[in-house]
Amino acid sequence: MSKPIFVLNGPNLSRLGAREPQIYGYETLEDIRQRCERRAASLGLVIEFRQSNHEGELVDWLNEAADGACAVVLNPAAYGHRSIALYDAIKAMDTPVVECHLSNPGAREAFRHVSMVSQAARGVVSGFGPMSYELALEAAAHLAGSAAKIAG
Amino acid sequence: MSKPIFVLNGPNLSRLGAREPQIYGYETLEDIRQRCERRAASLGLVIEFRQSNHEGELVDWLNEAADGACAVVLNPAAYGHRSIALYDAIKAMDTPVVECHLSNPGAREAFRHVSMVSQAARGVVSGFGPMSYELALEAAAHLAGSAAKIAG
Amino acid sequence: MSKPIFVLNGPNLSRLGAREPQIYGYETLEDIRQRCERRAASLGLVIEFRQSNHEGELVDWLNEAADGACAVVLNPAAYGHRSIALYDAIKAMDTPVVECHLSNPGAREAFRHVSMVSQAARGVVSGFGPMSYELALEAAAHLAGSAAKIAG
Amino acid sequence: MSKPIFVLNGPNLSRLGAREPQIYGYETLEDIRQRCERRAASLGLVIEFRQSNHEGELVDWLNEAADGACAVVLNPAAYGHRSIALYDAIKAMDTPVVECHLSNPGAREAFRHVSMVSQAARGVVSGFGPMSYELALEAAAHLAGSAAKIAG
Amino acid sequence: MSKPIFVLNGPNLSRLGAREPQIYGYETLEDIRQRCERRAASLGLVIEFRQSNHEGELVDWLNEAADGACAVVLNPAAYGHRSIALYDAIKAMDTPVVECHLSNPGAREAFRHVSMVSQAARGVVSGFGPMSYELALEAAAHLAGSAAKIAG
Amino acid sequence: MSKPIFVLNGPNLSRLGAREPQIYGYETLEDIRQRCERRAASLGLVIEFRQSNHEGELVDWLNEAADGACAVVLNPAAYGHRSIALYDAIKAMDTPVVECHLSNPGAREAFRHVSMVSQAARGVVSGFGPMSYELALEAAAHLAGSAAKIAG
Amino acid sequence: MSKPIFVLNGPNLSRLGAREPQIYGYETLEDIRQRCERRAASLGLVIEFRQSNHEGELVDWLNEAADGACAVVLNPAAYGHRSIALYDAIKAMDTPVVECHLSNPGAREAFRHVSMVSQAARGVVSGFGPMSYELALEAAAHLAGSAAKIAG
Amino acid sequence: MSKPIFVLNGPNLSRLGAREPQIYGYETLEDIRQRCERRAASLGLVIEFRQSNHEGELVDWLNEAADGACAVVLNPAAYGHRSIALYDAIKAMDTPVVECHLSNPGAREAFRHVSMVSQAARGVVSGFGPMSYELALEAAAHLAGSAAKIAG
Amino acid sequence: MSKPIFVLNGPNLSRLGAREPQIYGYETLEDIRQRCERRAASLGLVIEFRQSNHEGELVDWLNEAADGACAVVLNPAAYGHRSIALYDAIKAMDTPVVECHLSNPGAREAFRHVSMVSQAARGVVSGFGPMSYELALEAAAHLAGSAAKIAG
Amino acid sequence: MSKPIFVLNGPNLSRLGAREPQIYGYETLEDIRQRCERRAASLGLVIEFRQSNHEGELVDWLNEAADGACAVVLNPAAYGHRSIALYDAIKAMDTPVVECHLSNPGAREAFRHVSMVSQAARGVVSGFGPMSYELALEAAAHLAGSAAKIAG
Amino acid sequence: MSKPIFVLNGPNLSRLGAREPQIYGYETLEDIRQRCERRAASLGLVIEFRQSNHEGELVDWLNEAADGACAVVLNPAAYGHRSIALYDAIKAMDTPVVECHLSNPGAREAFRHVSMVSQAARGVVSGFGPMSYELALEAAAHLAGSAAKIAG
Amino acid sequence: MSKPIFVLNGPNLSRLGAREPQIYGYETLEDIRQRCERRAASLGLVIEFRQSNHEGELVDWLNEAADGACAVVLNPAAYGHRSIALYDAIKAMDTPVVECHLSNPGAREAFRHVSMVSQAARGVVSGFGPMSYELALEAAAHLAGSAAKIAG
Repeated sequence: MSKPIFVLNGPNLSRLGAREPQIYGYETLEDIRQRCERRAASLGLVIEFRQSNHEGELVDWLNEAADGACAVVLNPAAYGHRSIALYDAIKAMDTPVVECHLSNPGAREAFRHVSMVSQAARGVVSGFGPMSYELALEAAAHLAGSAAKIAG
Repeated sequence: MSKPIFVLNGPNLSRLGAREPQIYGYETLEDIRQRCERRAASLGLVIEFRQSNHEGELVDWLNEAADGACAVVLNPAAYGHRSIALYDAIKAMDTPVVECHLSNPGAREAFRHVSMVSQAARGVVSGFGPMSYELALEAAAHLAGSAAKIAG
Repeated sequence: MSKPIFVLNGPNLSRLGAREPQIYGYETLEDIRQRCERRAASLGLVIEFRQSNHEGELVDWLNEAADGACAVVLNPAAYGHRSIALYDAIKAMDTPVVECHLSNPGAREAFRHVSMVSQAARGVVSGFGPMSYELALEAAAHLAGSAAKIAG
Repeated sequence: MSKPIFVLNGPNLSRLGAREPQIYGYETLEDIRQRCERRAASLGLVIEFRQSNHEGELVDWLNEAADGACAVVLNPAAYGHRSIALYDAIKAMDTPVVECHLSNPGAREAFRHVSMVSQAARGVVSGFGPMSYELALEAAAHLAGSAAKIAG
Repeated sequence: MSKPIFVLNGPNLSRLGAREPQIYGYETLEDIRQRCERRAASLGLVIEFRQSNHEGELVDWLNEAADGACAVVLNPAAYGHRSIALYDAIKAMDTPVVECHLSNPGAREAFRHVSMVSQAARGVVSGFGPMSYELALEAAAHLAGSAAKIAG
Repeated sequence: MSKPIFVLNGPNLSRLGAREPQIYGYETLEDIRQRCERRAASLGLVIEFRQSNHEGELVDWLNEAADGACAVVLNPAAYGHRSIALYDAIKAMDTPVVECHLSNPGAREAFRHVSMVSQAARGVVSGFGPMSYELALEAAAHLAGSAAKIAG
Repeated sequence: MSKPIFVLNGPNLSRLGAREPQIYGYETLEDIRQRCERRAASLGLVIEFRQSNHEGELVDWLNEAADGACAVVLNPAAYGHRSIALYDAIKAMDTPVVECHLSNPGAREAFRHVSMVSQAARGVVSGFGPMSYELALEAAAHLAGSAAKIAG
Repeated sequence: MSKPIFVLNGPNLSRLGAREPQIYGYETLEDIRQRCERRAASLGLVIEFRQSNHEGELVDWLNEAADGACAVVLNPAAYGHRSIALYDAIKAMDTPVVECHLSNPGAREAFRHVSMVSQAARGVVSGFGPMSYELALEAAAHLAGSAAKIAG
Repeated sequence: MSKPIFVLNGPNLSRLGAREPQIYGYETLEDIRQRCERRAASLGLVIEFRQSNHEGELVDWLNEAADGACAVVLNPAAYGHRSIALYDAIKAMDTPVVECHLSNPGAREAFRHVSMVSQAARGVVSGFGPMSYELALEAAAHLAGSAAKIAG
Repeated sequence: MSKPIFVLNGPNLSRLGAREPQIYGYETLEDIRQRCERRAASLGLVIEFRQSNHEGELVDWLNEAADGACAVVLNPAAYGHRSIALYDAIKAMDTPVVECHLSNPGAREAFRHVSMVSQAARGVVSGFGPMSYELALEAAAHLAGSAAKIAG
Repeated sequence: MSKPIFVLNGPNLSRLGAREPQIYGYETLEDIRQRCERRAASLGLVIEFRQSNHEGELVDWLNEAADGACAVVLNPAAYGHRSIALYDAIKAMDTPVVECHLSNPGAREAFRHVSMVSQAARGVVSGFGPMSYELALEAAAHLAGSAAKIAG
Repeated sequence: MSKPIFVLNGPNLSRLGAREPQIYGYETLEDIRQRCERRAASLGLVIEFRQSNHEGELVDWLNEAADGACAVVLNPAAYGHRSIALYDAIKAMDTPVVECHLSNPGAREAFRHVSMVSQAARGVVSGFGPMSYELALEAAAHLAGSAAKIAG
């Protein structure tokens, strides 16, 4: 299991800390990256942490993860709700994908109650702020391990 | 933080193991109870683990948890999608509630894509089989701890 | 007219006073019971005051009221919006039923704007806090009296 | 509390008594005016009773009531279901408004199940024939009194 | 049958001839009034021909027609599609009402495909330009005659 | 103008007189045929009167009418509401088509409130029982005459 | 009760046995005809068994059954879901009609969950393969007998 | 095949005979129980006949039937239309379930046209009054027998 | 270009300043009239500034503007969202109409997200408080000038 | 591969050339038949070319094609959008079916944007006028050949 | 107020002048840039004018504008209607954003009647061709000035 | 006709062969490129074959094709269903665009049944695997030739 876990972040997440802290909290994305690295290390894993405002770049990275990652933690942010391209990208890979959100989309505006990504992902962790990433990493590690065992 | 975490389970979960294992896996609810106890112990917590097929009984327990629990992990199963009573019960308490599912409802029938409970809960963990409970417990412990610190 | 008026209360109403006072006010359900008894006494009536979190128990009581009550004041709370069972129970009895709410559901979340119970009840009183019960009682007494006169 | 309560009636209510008595009963609007005056007198209040078929005139009167009335009982009839102008008029005043109907709109055609006015009014009384007005007056007096006390 | 037939015209019809002639033709409303009078005369009838841009005034006139007309030809124009007040006014009278349109609403924008007035009127004539009025008058005379015979 | 007017009748109209007379009246389709012939004669016209329960046969006849008729009166009955084939057939001809109904579909079940045929026809006459046919014939003759004048 | 029971079959049922056996089973329509005749004989009844791919022909046969059959068992197949013509045909007759399906439409594609025919038929038997016909026949015989008793 | 067939009845069915006889007929639930026992005896079967107003209790019994019954006849009444819990309970068992209704829900209010239970059950019998139970029992016996043969 | 620009204001705007200042600001309608006159003067234009709570009166004025104004600035307020009469009035005139709002309807309740008036108007200015009127005036002057140039 | 390819044409296609040439072009159906024969000959295939206005006849022919054709090119015209009977007919055969349209339904009225036939067919060619048939024939030949290879 | 106003243009706007001039006019985007610079200069402001076909790049620029611009004029073109990413980007910044369109989306295809961007922007100017940009700039300058005053 | 045909491929198509072969087949995108080149060569045409996961890049290329290509074959993949930007790009060019899909979207998930691209493209070829590209190329060549002839 020497491949990394990709931790992929969608649009506007680079503005964390500055952006609506009553919803997203005061930690920056860099803070979260460090948390993820610590948690990953404790699980014996390496992560690859990226952010993009481009839906197409997230698709690029998921395509890359099909061969280059043992699992993916994906916070698709705004693109998660309606992107068929992300849905297709996840369906087109065997690598397990865990959807992750800082806030709980189900408790916000109605247009956030549906998720295309959820229809393709293995599971979801949302609503716990930066801790969502840690739990999602643990879930991803677990799924990657199971896959490894089956493959092995 | 001497109050327990309530782990509440909704309809048909007593049939776990026997029920559609391709969706829900082979562990029984008793297996999951033991997992939860071990994980809770490792977090220094006590749990109260219950199951009911009655929506009203779940409401009773949430009302009880408002004063008697430090946090709640709730797998509302079928009642989660449309129950305004559960929604109201969660809104009527300050104790944090974490929604939890064995499977990923977003990837199943369309009527499972919406959730009344998600509109009131703090966060959601779904899709990781019995491990969903463990991660939800950790999230609940985290939220209970934060609440305790604020209250303290 | 020696039969009592049933005053039936649905889910989460036992938490009144503690629950979201900015919506539901500071009186407890016991306070409301006493108000209802005073108002009923002033109208020369007796009441039977009950609460349950179980939809099925509310149906039980409405079935009982078909023969055992001269009228019903029903605060169905969360079950009022979607319960066909309550709708059927009211349709299955001649005893008049008055729907009653502390808050005004029409001015709250969209899912509270529709009511199955309203489709079967004689009338509605909502939005006046505990006073809704008093006015509903007076309406129920009025309907029971009319029914008594017709029957007599 | 020397300001009157406005009792405002919407379209077609001038035809009460002649119009579909199986739904609206045999009393005329003049009968209802007299009922309201008697009930108001017993509450120590004065009423101003008006009817118009014009949505715009109802808006005029609500604008007038913002300063000239202590409370409003409004039977918007057909305009209640879809009128954003009435909704805005009520939102634009502090004077409490009680919605009132002779019949129970919830038990009639589907297009009567939704109400724009309910989304802005303090509360609703419907389904008790002319008695709806009496109960609505009592509710309005109660709300006006509370407002007076707070203002006082 | 000495009562007149009311021919009532809704909003913007006073601009006929000037308004979108490719849809509504080149005749003015005065031209149509004269047509109607000629056709009515040939049927031995008298008409009362009116136009208003006010929904409330159309309701006033329908209320008046309940006693003062033997039948009504109503071109509700824009108000026909969504006006519950017109629907109620027609339901509140025994005098037969015939809906009439110059153009065929069913063949225009989607919001013209539904009609509240059609849900209450006896019948509809639409799409024949000014001739729609003549045919509607004949239908109204026919319905008035039948009613007279039944009443007589 | 030596071509006939086609009067085409859709499904179940052969059962007129026997079928739900409270909605459709007591005249048979043969009675209506004779009415139509008398009215047509008075207008100096000949009719071709047909009935079929087959949507496809109605399409056949409309295709035939494109060259063989000066106008069409079409009572599509049940097929009028959803038949794109009838819509296309009418769009594919220059001969004017008048939609006609014994009852007023707008005042019946909701699925009768929409009409595909109305989206293609020149105009509609509905709700006047057998007299609907007579008025529709007059309208059709009028449209055929106008067309003849333009062509001439 | 010397009139036969019509057993009418809609589109594609002639291909039974060959068509998707995992849904419709291995019996042919001829096998089902023989089953129906045996069951009818045991009930002292005669059947008339027909199949057509034409909606119009099913309407023809229902019109015929109004006078010529004591009851109808109708498997409308694909036409049952949206055919207003079949709905009207059933409404236009007093002869009882029992809807019947080999598979359970409610458990298949969403467009099979609604049925126009169910809105007009007396009752439904579906989901039991060829046995659906036998039970429907027994129900039809029962309804025909009741009708005969009332008529007698 | 020594296990009984469970005959399970949902909310308000205990009021049969007293409740809206124009819809549900004059037989009581006890009458129906006796009918079922006679029919079952004639099929060589034993039944277990129960009624509850509680959705949760119906779920309890379906869970019990998974092991304790050879088949189930379920009249879910009001809960059948929207209960995901009943749907899940049926999906979670191999024992065949036959849905059964006294009236034909498809011919009643629109909210009865959809059924969650139908999406999970093997088949449906509805609209034949108490005879629906007898036919459903025969269908259930047939399915149980087939299952037994396959298992045997 | 000697004709004035009509500045027409819909329901409840007479209450500006008093009405919900957090949404509509503290300026009164008279303040806005003066702003508009100053801005118009600077553009070499004269305005006619009016307000009405009556939809019909707004239609009257638009009909008048067809000949009497060089352009119209219309703040339809509540009537803008659903009024087909206003839509038709604008379609029936060549004079350009600019829709104008103090607040941004798109950022408020969902029922304000759609606009019938926008479907007919030339353009929209919304969300800038009283400055919306000034910008709308400039746009209207621009459109009137273009029209004048084309006409000239 | 001695079986022919069926080329089946739905309602109103017999009027090609005369019908709305701006949409459907100037070639007649006979012209298209000859094109198809030439293209088929060049592919070494024989075609059977038919047209009907009857949905039922198209079903008949699809049933016939199940055994009698090596592939089907189907232009369902108006019936393609809503016909469950055609959908079922295609599902009930192994012979590949290619849907074909002269115009591009997706670029026309909204009711043409959905297609029941597309949900069952192997593929679609639309929008290229008569050339759509040629390309569809080539696709059908390709699919038939693949099937033959698999079968062979 | 030394920061520039960003003028951001979405997909396909680079083709202005060539693209559908009957909708978008004959000016190129370069023409509009020059207009904006002149207007900005007259207001004492500097602009930064950009165009991209990439939703992600527009998000990048909005994120940049949060700190680097005093206001934004945004013509989101096609992305405005459904982009949650743009909505989130605007919500995540305090810099005021003015939405701007050349044409009036409300008067075009139905899918342009809704706007995600409008739900987050301060205000909208649309329908005035290139002049929309000038008015939007003036509005943006006004909002930037107010913000500056408050901040100052 | 020396300009090339652009063959543009949307998101995830670079993973063909690896991605869900039961839906998309075993050929890679490179295999398809070679097929297209061979087919183009046989038609005397040159192609430009590209793939991108970025919606914006597809828009860039369509803008480029407006002048630089004689026709476009576009497989928009996931972006085809909801992209207004692609719709606008196609509307903004005269070069003909042919939509193309490997699988038949109409026979897959419901969200693939609608297509924004289809609303703007000239025609569609879908469902034939890599052969869809060949047929689409032939159609594009045909359309380009026609355009050339008209231009010539």
